[in-house]
Amino acid sequence: MAEPPAAAEARALDAADPLSAFRDRFVIADPALIYLDGNSLGRLPRAAGDRLAAVVGAEWGERLVRGWNEGWFDAPDRLGDKLAGLLGAGAGEVILADSTSVNLFKLSLAALLARPDRHTIVTDDLNFPSDLYILRSAARLAGRPVTLRVVPAADGIHGPVEALAAALDEDTALLSLSHTVFKSGYTYDMAALTALAHRAGALALWDLSHSAGAVVVDLHGAAADLAVGCTYKYLNGGPGAPAFLYVRRDLQETLANPISGWIGSRDPFDFALEHAPAPGIRRFLTGTPPILSLAAVEPGLDLLLEAGLSQLRQRSVRLSEYLIDRWQERLEPLGFRLNSPRDPARRGSHVSLGHADGLRVNLALIHEGHVLPDFRRPDNIRLGIAPLYNTFADLYTAVERLRAVVVDRLYERYDATGLAVT
Amino acid sequence: MAEPPAAAEARALDAADPLSAFRDRFVIADPALIYLDGNSLGRLPRAAGDRLAAVVGAEWGERLVRGWNEGWFDAPDRLGDKLAGLLGAGAGEVILADSTSVNLFKLSLAALLARPDRHTIVTDDLNFPSDLYILRSAARLAGRPVTLRVVPAADGIHGPVEALAAALDEDTALLSLSHTVFKSGYTYDMAALTALAHRAGALALWDLSHSAGAVVVDLHGAAADLAVGCTYKYLNGGPGAPAFLYVRRDLQETLANPISGWIGSRDPFDFALEHAPAPGIRRFLTGTPPILSLAAVEPGLDLLLEAGLSQLRQRSVRLSEYLIDRWQERLEPLGFRLNSPRDPARRGSHVSLGHADGLRVNLALIHEGHVLPDFRRPDNIRLGIAPLYNTFADLYTAVERLRAVVVDRLYERYDATGLAVT
Repeated sequence: MAEPPAAAEARALDAADPLSAFRDRFVIADPALIYLDGNSLGRLPRAAGDRLAAVVGAEWGERLVRGWNEGWFDAPDRLGDKLAGLLGAGAGEVILADSTSVNLFKLSLAALLARPDRHTIVTDDLNFPSDLYILRSAARLAGRPVTLRVVPAADGIHGPVEALAAALDEDTALLSLSHTVFKSGYTYDMAALTALAHRAGALALWDLSHSAGAVVVDLHGAAADLAVGCTYKYLNGGPGAPAFLYVRRDLQETLANPISGWIGSRDPFDFALEHAPAPGIRRFLTGTPPILSLAAVEPGLDLLLEAGLSQLRQRSVRLSEYLIDRWQERLEPLGFRLNSPRDPARRGSHVSLGHADGLRVNLALIHEGHVLPDFRRPDNIRLGIAPLYNTFADLYTAVERLRAVVVDRLYERYDATGLAVT
Repeated sequence: MAEPPAAAEARALDAADPLSAFRDRFVIADPALIYLDGNSLGRLPRAAGDRLAAVVGAEWGERLVRGWNEGWFDAPDRLGDKLAGLLGAGAGEVILADSTSVNLFKLSLAALLARPDRHTIVTDDLNFPSDLYILRSAARLAGRPVTLRVVPAADGIHGPVEALAAALDEDTALLSLSHTVFKSGYTYDMAALTALAHRAGALALWDLSHSAGAVVVDLHGAAADLAVGCTYKYLNGGPGAPAFLYVRRDLQETLANPISGWIGSRDPFDFALEHAPAPGIRRFLTGTPPILSLAAVEPGLDLLLEAGLSQLRQRSVRLSEYLIDRWQERLEPLGFRLNSPRDPARRGSHVSLGHADGLRVNLALIHEGHVLPDFRRPDNIRLGIAPLYNTFADLYTAVERLRAVVVDRLYERYDATGLAVT
């Protein structure tokens, strides 16, 4: 069977792309599987397995407790400094620690305690639900009534910028948003929203989980105050890898870590009965750093730094625009909607496609075994594009398989619970 | 040179001991190094490297995001159920999560919020300093004035049981203690202290970091309410391994996790905008579980379960009593003091020896390169005895090297900052 011209075109685009070689730096266990869920869990960098084996064998196994003086103790800020290079932050402003949720708790509560005469946190309903849960947790502990204002996005896709601007006022302590939102991939203008928060006298806290490593994040350029995020999506740090947090340097001495454990203290091995915070960003550490998980994060960071964030972003846009072109030609006529912004400047690195039978279409696609996307209610088939390893050919095939699932009515074999019905 | 009779005796004790073979289940990279710091970081189980490599390669690498449905999601409670078997707890009462400090924060604050009309936490000054820092963090966020009463231990070695009993009253919300304390190794009678707390209407929260895996912990038998601890000491889970928490079953529905993230919610993948807690112990989870670090914990748990906690404890006591006998014969005449309880029923699995030049003696011992203990101010040379791999011969040699350091005045080569002065 002759190759369709569009397939050959995708292959030609891959052959010509300057970053295509980075795919070989990842373990591709099943070359036939098109993995479009790197926005949930990034692929395994080839170097990560070796690095972890070395930390286990040569560090834990041989050096034992001496490892703490030979690099482990400094790992949270050493890796943070590397990550800072991908976030537009400076050295000494980022650490790896805890989970995104715990970091969001620490920084949002620190912000509330630093604005004691204000009673509102502003966010939107595109934010990751756990962020809302955590912001409410922090609000309950602020020592005064604090309300979380969840501004609705009218179309469920685009950030409600004007409504957020209207919601920010002299009673707002904190604006907290996902920079790139998890369903539609809408990406806020961080500088503009931060400026709105600052105009109201509020702090701005950004969740970068869906943008770090895939979008050009410029925390300094945006004058952002605080940020958190995970490392297991586009940063390829591994399942449940340690999260990160950012506190702008001039705020570090004015904010207090509300969970002040020994590793965030000035001299943990002094074992003083009273806590004194460490200077700088380390005061936002709490417990003992998870060395094995931290070690697994580093190879992914190194790959991103080697590729260069600006180059990666350009490739992400090329791939996403290609996918949207293919959607328009092949899928829109079958009833698929674009549930992501059309403007690449306002879109992260995943594309959500809606369909009236979205859940069943997604199930059929997965059960076919060629393409692995994910699904977010009510109808979003979410296609994550990791610019380090996804290809034009991946996207070509994904679109054709989605088309086949609908044209051949394969989705009718499944009910909404995921059970095959035929 | 003929072997001293005491050395031959130590070898004979090892040859006769029923648990001696477990040492071979650990990586012993340098057989000449006597490692007596397993109470800071346990040795690497041989199986841990293989297990981690499998999780990285066959799970993260091959199964990718599907791993969450194939065991990862349930890892915190599955491993918690195993650990429960070492703590006298039941299935569904223990989870692995976060760090000890974060877990202590969650449970102590939950306890304070469950006793809203009480204003005191009671602890002692033998407690790990980070625990005091965290209890103060929780106290500051309780929404009312809460004071941490730090009861002093008169001799710095034994828990101030009577003073604690006197401190507990109708204003006490929580009694929080280290079961085995980090400097002297004093081990509380958990049942007796918990009963005192309950008599005052307070909850009892135990930090098991220095007792889990080395002491017979019986949370049910003691009617303990809450517990936390680390897994990187006698449980051999690796540097910075995830910590654990215990909430007695009948309290689980009455306590709220103050950091209520998505993984602790009833249906995390429903992405509801309002949080509803998961049933049971999982409501105390917060963020995404650290899968790689969790995987490394399991082989250590399996070894402890295979050896049997009661057998391990008996071996720990045999080794500790042997060490104390050797101290009395060889070190006490040189001015070494026993800074641990003499009664094995009140002692964990480490023995602290004090000396007027303790810091320099410890430095000289480490710089000799044969023995690796640790040191805790002001004068404690802390010898951790991990019953799975430490031997009578280890302890024989450690005592002889300590003796030589003092008899040959090797410690005079060092000043108190650790610099060699000759």
